[in-house]
Amino acid sequence: MSDDKRQQALDYHAYPTPGKISVELSKPADSAADLALAYSPGVAEPVREIAQDADAVYRYTGKGNMVAVISNGTAILGLGNLGPMASKPVMEGKALLFKRFAGLDSIDIEVKHRTIDEFVDTVANIADTFGGINLEDIKAPDCFEIEKQLIARCEVPVFHDDQHGTAIVTAAGMLNALELQGKDIREATVVCMGAGAAAVACMELLIKCGAQREKIYMLDRKGVIHTRRDDINKYKQLFANNTDKRTLEDVIEGADMFVGVSGPDLLSPEALKLMADKPVIFACSNPDPEIHPDVAHQVRDDLIMGTGRSDYPNQVNNVLCFPFIFRGALDVRASEINDAMKLAAVEAIRSLAKEPVPQTVLDAAGLSSLSFGPDYIIPKPMDARLLPKVARAVALAAVETGVARIEMPENYMM
Amino acid sequence: MSDDKRQQALDYHAYPTPGKISVELSKPADSAADLALAYSPGVAEPVREIAQDADAVYRYTGKGNMVAVISNGTAILGLGNLGPMASKPVMEGKALLFKRFAGLDSIDIEVKHRTIDEFVDTVANIADTFGGINLEDIKAPDCFEIEKQLIARCEVPVFHDDQHGTAIVTAAGMLNALELQGKDIREATVVCMGAGAAAVACMELLIKCGAQREKIYMLDRKGVIHTRRDDINKYKQLFANNTDKRTLEDVIEGADMFVGVSGPDLLSPEALKLMADKPVIFACSNPDPEIHPDVAHQVRDDLIMGTGRSDYPNQVNNVLCFPFIFRGALDVRASEINDAMKLAAVEAIRSLAKEPVPQTVLDAAGLSSLSFGPDYIIPKPMDARLLPKVARAVALAAVETGVARIEMPENYMM
Repeated sequence: MSDDKRQQALDYHAYPTPGKISVELSKPADSAADLALAYSPGVAEPVREIAQDADAVYRYTGKGNMVAVISNGTAILGLGNLGPMASKPVMEGKALLFKRFAGLDSIDIEVKHRTIDEFVDTVANIADTFGGINLEDIKAPDCFEIEKQLIARCEVPVFHDDQHGTAIVTAAGMLNALELQGKDIREATVVCMGAGAAAVACMELLIKCGAQREKIYMLDRKGVIHTRRDDINKYKQLFANNTDKRTLEDVIEGADMFVGVSGPDLLSPEALKLMADKPVIFACSNPDPEIHPDVAHQVRDDLIMGTGRSDYPNQVNNVLCFPFIFRGALDVRASEINDAMKLAAVEAIRSLAKEPVPQTVLDAAGLSSLSFGPDYIIPKPMDARLLPKVARAVALAAVETGVARIEMPENYMM
Repeated sequence: MSDDKRQQALDYHAYPTPGKISVELSKPADSAADLALAYSPGVAEPVREIAQDADAVYRYTGKGNMVAVISNGTAILGLGNLGPMASKPVMEGKALLFKRFAGLDSIDIEVKHRTIDEFVDTVANIADTFGGINLEDIKAPDCFEIEKQLIARCEVPVFHDDQHGTAIVTAAGMLNALELQGKDIREATVVCMGAGAAAVACMELLIKCGAQREKIYMLDRKGVIHTRRDDINKYKQLFANNTDKRTLEDVIEGADMFVGVSGPDLLSPEALKLMADKPVIFACSNPDPEIHPDVAHQVRDDLIMGTGRSDYPNQVNNVLCFPFIFRGALDVRASEINDAMKLAAVEAIRSLAKEPVPQTVLDAAGLSSLSFGPDYIIPKPMDARLLPKVARAVALAAVETGVARIEMPENYMM
């Protein structure tokens, strides 16, 4: 990032007031009469109602529209474990995106703790304050255990976006790309470079979409994760392949899909050449992908490629998903965000990419035309149709799988 | 409260959207370029800055203007222990007041927990998220231990408003009333009806203002707290009087001051008659005071009286204090809210009541004139001069006592 860009980012955060979000009044509070409703004595009435009927908290408070973005700062962006306070700009940014894209009130909470149990206790103890909890930037493998325990303990949905948001958008783009390449995910060989939170979640969701576990090769810093390794945690263990292959070069040969959630330049042009015909490459390391799209397209012309970058086609961006997943989940008061809801989001995002693109989206992207094809396999982040499409699909799936606690509003998001 | 008023309070909370506060964007987030500053990749810059310099969190995030209002719902208003969720409308109301009166962003957190230690751990673990922590509606004696532990563990100021906010406003009004009655607090006999959080804090602060501990008689449900009782906690113990007096009637005779933070109608007209000449009565049980002001004024014409009610003179209302205490503390990044800051708030509130009242305040109160005297011993809650007066006094006291971590801004609140 240039010094200019760097300063611009710092100035954006600093002026005119520090930060990016504020709390505002949603009700009048001008007169003494207003305040007598908002606070003592009027406020005693909703208190009494909630004491008698727990559901009344959704009628008289902001809980049902409020998402907490919670982190411990152990894996901030690609920058590593910098502590809870350093994660605050990211968490406030996430809160901003929840409001901007889905109208959800959202606030960040940074947690310091000594053990996984202490983190879980802390979050579980404050969870009822909110309608849902978005976990963020928590290192693997802690994040798996933390999410599992919190889902079990919290009455509101808990969702680790680095895992599932990434997985949903990746799966949507990947399925569309495979369709364009004329390939069947059930027969495709997958190389996953990276074995962290996003990698594990992406592969698990691809399996739910039809991928075969034994056709997946996952690699960590030491190479291929295989059944004879004794240095891998129980989450990587799920992807231990019974194979003699040991290196990226061993597994990339003939592979149909490459998913990179690791670091810059880890896929060489030579390795790319070894892949099967018509491969799909998602190089999501950000800002520097596993292989630069310009390089990849020079090496071969039969690939479809996605990255994390906004300045190239097919940006794999979680914002296509998380605001709308929570919107749908909260609007039917879902007790959790289950697989059916995640898969519904995948389908909604996939199908939107096949629809004609409105002028507003073209304008925002600075393009004159855009249609489903190798350079447009997933919707653009600024596409306003994502909100109704994805939120409705997610809400419907929640209702159908019995995790919704209220009915879907009539003509919801239609 | 009439059915009409009751429904009006519920409707205020329910429509058009549930609750009273929302989270909004304080920075532009319209274009892809905006989002590249607010989130990835731009957000990495403030993250790096904070990782290198902890103070940078105040430059690039909302922390420095953010107050958490935290409760466990164990003593909600005068309604008792109704649980964390039932406290949410009150906490959101408090957040609304922080914004309305002092421009502070404020969010509520409701905590469920099994032990005092678990509550303290939970709050301490999330405390750095905020610039300050306002504890609310936590039952005595737990609140004393909780506040003490949190002050020791948190780097940001922690303030239990039910204790100290009440104490500060009571002390300000009481000192002004004594001055008008021509009495010296160092010689005054005090009867305190109630022995909860507010009572203990009020008496401790009055002692710091000059009251003599041995001239204070505190009463709980069982009567006078005296040195031969063995059924009192260590906080009440501090007020155990070495006396043979056992009942309200015993101690009220000849008393100069009555502070009621207990329940309706606990001070009978007969008892009131027994007090010394020119007494001061603060009957703060709300909405029904320990003795109704109409009754009290019928019984004797030499008293000065305050209540918690907005429809009678001299309303003892915490909102005169807590927004401005936090404003001043946060603006000099105070590490705590110490006694000097509390006493500075007392003096600022006291002295404001002696200044000429602006037309806007008269209009808001529906009065044609108002001047320092028996019916005007403390400022009105809608008095906009409270913000600069109290915040400046508090900030100055923080600087002078060495708990401010930055200098007071030049011409602060002038």
